[in-house]
Amino acid sequence: MATVPTIALDAMGGDYAPDEIVAGAAEALKGAQGQLRIVLVGQQPLIRRALERYGPIEGITIRHASESVDMAESVASLRRKKDSSLAVAIRMQKDGEADAMVSAGNTGAAMALSLLILGRIPGVSRPAIACTMPTATGVCTLLDVGANTTCKPEHLVQFAVMGSLYHTYAHSVARPRVGLLSIGEEASKGDSLVQETHAMLAVSSLNFIGNVEGRDILPGAADVVVCDGFTGNVVLKFAESAAQVIGGMIREAVQSSAMSRLGGVLIKRQFAKVKQRFDWEEYGGAPLLGIDGITIICHGRSKAKAIRNAIRVAAMAARGQLNSHIKAELEKVSVDATA
Amino acid sequence: MATVPTIALDAMGGDYAPDEIVAGAAEALKGAQGQLRIVLVGQQPLIRRALERYGPIEGITIRHASESVDMAESVASLRRKKDSSLAVAIRMQKDGEADAMVSAGNTGAAMALSLLILGRIPGVSRPAIACTMPTATGVCTLLDVGANTTCKPEHLVQFAVMGSLYHTYAHSVARPRVGLLSIGEEASKGDSLVQETHAMLAVSSLNFIGNVEGRDILPGAADVVVCDGFTGNVVLKFAESAAQVIGGMIREAVQSSAMSRLGGVLIKRQFAKVKQRFDWEEYGGAPLLGIDGITIICHGRSKAKAIRNAIRVAAMAARGQLNSHIKAELEKVSVDATA
Repeated sequence: MATVPTIALDAMGGDYAPDEIVAGAAEALKGAQGQLRIVLVGQQPLIRRALERYGPIEGITIRHASESVDMAESVASLRRKKDSSLAVAIRMQKDGEADAMVSAGNTGAAMALSLLILGRIPGVSRPAIACTMPTATGVCTLLDVGANTTCKPEHLVQFAVMGSLYHTYAHSVARPRVGLLSIGEEASKGDSLVQETHAMLAVSSLNFIGNVEGRDILPGAADVVVCDGFTGNVVLKFAESAAQVIGGMIREAVQSSAMSRLGGVLIKRQFAKVKQRFDWEEYGGAPLLGIDGITIICHGRSKAKAIRNAIRVAAMAARGQLNSHIKAELEKVSVDATA
Repeated sequence: MATVPTIALDAMGGDYAPDEIVAGAAEALKGAQGQLRIVLVGQQPLIRRALERYGPIEGITIRHASESVDMAESVASLRRKKDSSLAVAIRMQKDGEADAMVSAGNTGAAMALSLLILGRIPGVSRPAIACTMPTATGVCTLLDVGANTTCKPEHLVQFAVMGSLYHTYAHSVARPRVGLLSIGEEASKGDSLVQETHAMLAVSSLNFIGNVEGRDILPGAADVVVCDGFTGNVVLKFAESAAQVIGGMIREAVQSSAMSRLGGVLIKRQFAKVKQRFDWEEYGGAPLLGIDGITIICHGRSKAKAIRNAIRVAAMAARGQLNSHIKAELEKVSVDATA
């Protein structure tokens, strides 16, 4: 990897592409002081137009790609679309032209093409999507949040290893507390997947704190919470909606009388801080851990702020050489996993 | 069932037993106008003492039981403790002395003893715990939330039937919208359990609206949300903690400056309404659906309000003859399920 990381950014992926994607790139480069390069991948005329509102930006280039991936693209059609912005952005790592890739497009397609083009880190059976969730005390890393609906214990152990390293790099926590998501604290609780995983994690070199329950995540009982991709996806989406629904009900309550409207004005500033803590755009960018390359997946609804954060995550993973650490750690754990 | 339902209340179960349990019974009877009877089951001297603060209460009686079930009781020791308050309370239905049972004690024990003593409704493979969750537009019934960590499609279909009927009786909704919890809207999304269940629900007589995601629960996209007991338990506990954690952060924000403290005073009344919407004590009492009898399970932390609500749920299920409807409906659906 070059000293200054180059991020390939899928400019055509996401509900607000290309404008908000380009805006995110511009914001990311503004504070980078030359320590970051971004390649906007996609329809050159559209990207150029989106760039017009900005002056010259140091570190930005365009790479034309003639096709786009739809939200409901089949794997077969993905294979045919060799010149989609997503495929080109991913391939740039293979060709040594980029160190990481960021996309707010079709998550399934980003996973499939990453596996197809970049492959897995040796020793990894299943890549997993890791997300950063706000807690009462800081943040936690939750994985898998959707790459694998059904898992074996070996997979969850690998998720724990990868998630632990990722948390260390992303949040500067030396030995993250790793919890296994279950429905009771005792090792005997949960299904056979959780029970077997518990036994394996208990003898690993990780800082394993045992089972955690749904109620333990938000108070910050663990730094890394490991689960299958079905449960993780449900929890992540529930959490995002909880912040929105509760926020909406509070707004409505504040608006419901003259006195509460005045009260709302007085607490506005303090409330904004709470709101910001639960704003997923602040945590934008979920890495697909285990890929032999760096693929950062964003929400389809990502705007500039989320894209800027995702670029930050991508650059951090590239600078810290996360993948070589994952490879080394998996060799140590020497999990005998079969995909 | 007698016209006036008799509820057997385990007075020894829960963190605040027997005082708060007895208080809940007193509150429930206050508004019942003779249309409810409660039998407090447990250590007679302790129950008597807890009752001392109240005047004579119409409709309350005591049934002595010499033993109690601990929070970490094994199934073997449960079988030996024939005179535990929980076992006696459950057995009263078998003996025609009560129409329903409420306990805030050990959930696993309540499930095991209910199965052992009362058995299942003919046609039910697996009983499921159904909980009521507040949504932006009302409430939804989520099940299973912990009775079954691993499920087959046939089980989830039965949960859907039982949950749909329960929702109708508990919340007066004629044809509840039933959603299947998954990680994508399309029928092809989710693991094989969800895919097969989806196909079965699609041809059922239920008002099946398809898959719902974690983000759809709180906005109220479905009246009944069906899932395996592992996922449901994680979601329920996450939801309860979300309300607490976000509430705590808001309180802290309000306290952080003189101006916001004043604002807090002005919005206090409106806020209390939002808080109440997410107060699980308001929804106390989760039925173990599928048992040939009525077992209502409460949080271990239940205080009087939660117990009072659980008694209301128990009386409602008894009055509405929920179980005969479940039996009739399962015969119609004629699911060929094996436990």
